[in-house]
Amino acid sequence: MAVLAEGEGEVGSLHFAAVMPDLPFLPFCALLGSLGLGCVAFVGAWCQHWRGGFAWDGSARMFNWHPVLMVTGMVVLYGAAALVYRLPPAWRGPKLPWKILHSTLALTAFILAVLGLVAVFNFHNASGTPNMYSLHSWLGLATILLFSCQWVAGFCAFLLPYAPIWIRALYKPVHVFFGSTILMLSMASCVSGINEKLFFSLKNGTASVPYKLLPPEAVFANILGLLIILFGVLVLCALAKPSWKRPEADSLDTHQPLLGAEH
Amino acid sequence: MAVLAEGEGEVGSLHFAAVMPDLPFLPFCALLGSLGLGCVAFVGAWCQHWRGGFAWDGSARMFNWHPVLMVTGMVVLYGAAALVYRLPPAWRGPKLPWKILHSTLALTAFILAVLGLVAVFNFHNASGTPNMYSLHSWLGLATILLFSCQWVAGFCAFLLPYAPIWIRALYKPVHVFFGSTILMLSMASCVSGINEKLFFSLKNGTASVPYKLLPPEAVFANILGLLIILFGVLVLCALAKPSWKRPEADSLDTHQPLLGAEH
Repeated sequence: MAVLAEGEGEVGSLHFAAVMPDLPFLPFCALLGSLGLGCVAFVGAWCQHWRGGFAWDGSARMFNWHPVLMVTGMVVLYGAAALVYRLPPAWRGPKLPWKILHSTLALTAFILAVLGLVAVFNFHNASGTPNMYSLHSWLGLATILLFSCQWVAGFCAFLLPYAPIWIRALYKPVHVFFGSTILMLSMASCVSGINEKLFFSLKNGTASVPYKLLPPEAVFANILGLLIILFGVLVLCALAKPSWKRPEADSLDTHQPLLGAEH
Repeated sequence: MAVLAEGEGEVGSLHFAAVMPDLPFLPFCALLGSLGLGCVAFVGAWCQHWRGGFAWDGSARMFNWHPVLMVTGMVVLYGAAALVYRLPPAWRGPKLPWKILHSTLALTAFILAVLGLVAVFNFHNASGTPNMYSLHSWLGLATILLFSCQWVAGFCAFLLPYAPIWIRALYKPVHVFFGSTILMLSMASCVSGINEKLFFSLKNGTASVPYKLLPPEAVFANILGLLIILFGVLVLCALAKPSWKRPEADSLDTHQPLLGAEH
């Protein structure tokens, strides 16, 4: 009853131990990768097919970069960054290359998110629309700010050679907790943003078929929202599965800062 | 270095072990209770002060029950139900009374959520508005359906005497994972719903000050959204903290079904 032993003691956290005891990580990861690419393809197709495509000129076509960059950065790339330590090759040998991959993916996600903010701010400024008034914008900006703190703190604690071991040990579960929390906040921001955009775009009077009559665009973008939720929940599930975690103690973690001598 | 030992091996799940090693659960719980009551008070005050109050007559005042019942049921009561096993008295003695409390709180949350659905469906039907077209409504209904499955499966597995021990052991981590996931989906539903309602209510042309100029109602309801997120994240944090979990093995769990003889 290894399954039983694994499941016990995990009550109350996002743990998903016993149900898939023998499912290998890599096929699950391939499914997750397809789902992530599906999210990017869906958000791109929505903006290209129904919202007029892309430009970088302050127009509504500049706004379209906002959902694409946010979904690609804060959901899909962020999810990939979170899963780096679950890859079986990352379980063996030195941890440093995987730490660099993790932080690089997260930094790329952050850069895309900042570009996504530039896209929406420029569009608002060019069209005379105020910034930062909706709950979506408050939550979205709070998520990005939290993510920037998370990245800087993670870089200082785990890659630079200055943090003492006890600081790393103290900060690690906080970094892990906020890792899942930021993904969750990103999902809530995306859902509220897609919902908001559809109400703006499919208004009675301006749209040929308004949102409330569920034209194809509405069905398509609603499905995009559900795909984002599904992707995020599966990432949280993969993160929480005990048997997919790096099995050995993380002793190397404290000995391989980016700038320090390896010993 | 008990803190270090506690923090290790928890990487990747919503674990928050080391940062608050000595914080007692009950003061945290009191803070959480105040925050939960604050959420209920905020959503009630919003609907009473700015949205015209409450009625059960198909009008917009009937709709106002929707946010109040959803926040009270699917966030605050649901959070309380999730935290029952973290109360130190629940760590000792038979688990059955705490299982009954957990399922009763969850059932009450479910009943409030169903009444919240009745409020919005009746309002839509009375005003000729279509139901179930927005992403908010799709996500919200999916959350309630998942919650109903979770409640029925939990009741059958852990309270009725028929489920064999291996089924309980297999299902328990799934129940726990979906417990956190449903709270997360509730938060996303609430945020998208508040955002949507403010765009409806504070439209250019009909509102004295539109949403984009951030009238007091908009600030108030945006803060409500952030309070809901804060409450939910703190509940997830409390659930994830290893030292707040029932310390002993859950052996009683499998011996105390509601209708079975205790042995």
